[in-house]
Amino acid sequence: MSLSPYLAKKSYLIDSALAEYLPPEDRYPEVIYRAMRYSVLNGGKRIRPVLMLAACEAVGGEAESILPAACAIEFIHSFSLIHDDLPALDNDDFRRGKPTSHKVFGEAIAILAGDALLTLAFETLVKTEVPPELLVKATARIASAAGVGGMIAGQVADIISEGKEVEPETLEFIHRNKTGALIQASVYCGGLLGGGTPQQLQALDFYGEKIGLAFQIADDILDVGEEGKATYPSLYGLEKSKELARQTVDEALAALADFDEKADPLRALARFIIERKA
Amino acid sequence: MSLSPYLAKKSYLIDSALAEYLPPEDRYPEVIYRAMRYSVLNGGKRIRPVLMLAACEAVGGEAESILPAACAIEFIHSFSLIHDDLPALDNDDFRRGKPTSHKVFGEAIAILAGDALLTLAFETLVKTEVPPELLVKATARIASAAGVGGMIAGQVADIISEGKEVEPETLEFIHRNKTGALIQASVYCGGLLGGGTPQQLQALDFYGEKIGLAFQIADDILDVGEEGKATYPSLYGLEKSKELARQTVDEALAALADFDEKADPLRALARFIIERKA
Repeated sequence: MSLSPYLAKKSYLIDSALAEYLPPEDRYPEVIYRAMRYSVLNGGKRIRPVLMLAACEAVGGEAESILPAACAIEFIHSFSLIHDDLPALDNDDFRRGKPTSHKVFGEAIAILAGDALLTLAFETLVKTEVPPELLVKATARIASAAGVGGMIAGQVADIISEGKEVEPETLEFIHRNKTGALIQASVYCGGLLGGGTPQQLQALDFYGEKIGLAFQIADDILDVGEEGKATYPSLYGLEKSKELARQTVDEALAALADFDEKADPLRALARFIIERKA
Repeated sequence: MSLSPYLAKKSYLIDSALAEYLPPEDRYPEVIYRAMRYSVLNGGKRIRPVLMLAACEAVGGEAESILPAACAIEFIHSFSLIHDDLPALDNDDFRRGKPTSHKVFGEAIAILAGDALLTLAFETLVKTEVPPELLVKATARIASAAGVGGMIAGQVADIISEGKEVEPETLEFIHRNKTGALIQASVYCGGLLGGGTPQQLQALDFYGEKIGLAFQIADDILDVGEEGKATYPSLYGLEKSKELARQTVDEALAALADFDEKADPLRALARFIIERKA
């Protein structure tokens, strides 16, 4: 299948839903709503929510029925970028060519806009119209992946490793948690909310783990030359890293062996992740 | 009834549950777990979770069965204090006589510890063993109260009002949202998770709104003399503020008219809120 029209259609759906679930900017105190919209509605690739919708469809679910959950994932991703960019953390002035939140709104509002998006994620997630026991499970999994069971643990490990020699185990811990956990949870919860069977969910969980890792190796390869950060190319060299990324994607694809053609977007997304140029 | 033994018993229960639901400190990366425990396990008064347990009991529920939800509320409260104290916000070096999180762990870890507690709140909330449709409702209400539907909107309004002449409506907006919304949600969700009827929940919601407001007026009265902040005494004078606090508590008590003696702790808590000395 060709991925481009699928990506275009799904990211259009997601962008429309994001604009709908973000509070309007014309209420007091306006600045926080402006800051939230500034960081979310920025033309991002929406990889995580697209993966969630694709996993939902792979088990026979209706992608449009879980759009609130897909928005929740993107709100969490936006929150993490705003806080990562803060002066006390990565101190980045630009993200994708636009000034970062704290450069536009000041540090206080940037911190609070991140906090607001994290809470909005859970508020939006539970609007998904699926049986409540599935929502409770998805909330538990997503909260764990976003918190010290995942993203935040990875971020902390990254911070305390900066400028140090890093063991392969530490690099894997950082990647598995900082980026991998939320990608894996997006895939898993897409299948869960789409009504997947336990066997399907287990396969999707494995697929999600592998593409989370492949995504990060690919990111490291794209970032070759960045200083002071532990990366796959700095530990293993460029060729070996490319080989590792391909192997990891093959493992992800193998996990989908028992799925029919409804999983073709997931298959194409796995390949896209290591072939993308940005 | 005498409130002291009730408060002592409930805060003991809550402190034990908090220590249990916080991740242990002996796993990598340790510093984030230490920072989370440092801010939560600090001998706080646990007013919000005690109110939640008391509301649960007022409708005939079992307080111990909703301890995860009570911990979730306290995790959100702790998150908000850590972020409020940051240099970019209130820039406080001490809280209750102890150095603030960012003074002990640095700004990056303090920001991430707040984020981690906010996600842990939702992870812990959904561990409460009640029917999942109640958990979904409680998650929606608590997320809204913690986010731009409450606490964060109040915090932003407070920041942008600093050093300015403040209208009574703005002061009420700040108080209703910054402190009031989470207190009100604690009471409401205690009743909801305890199995309260729609009428009981409506009464508890009103009670919660009023004591949230009384709590903040009382805080303002205790803080008389603080510079540059809009407060009830600075707008209305000390005597009129005390009168307002008493009136507000009377309204809260009136809302409980149809409850039996199981609501006596809620009644005593309403009085305690304006009589406390710290």
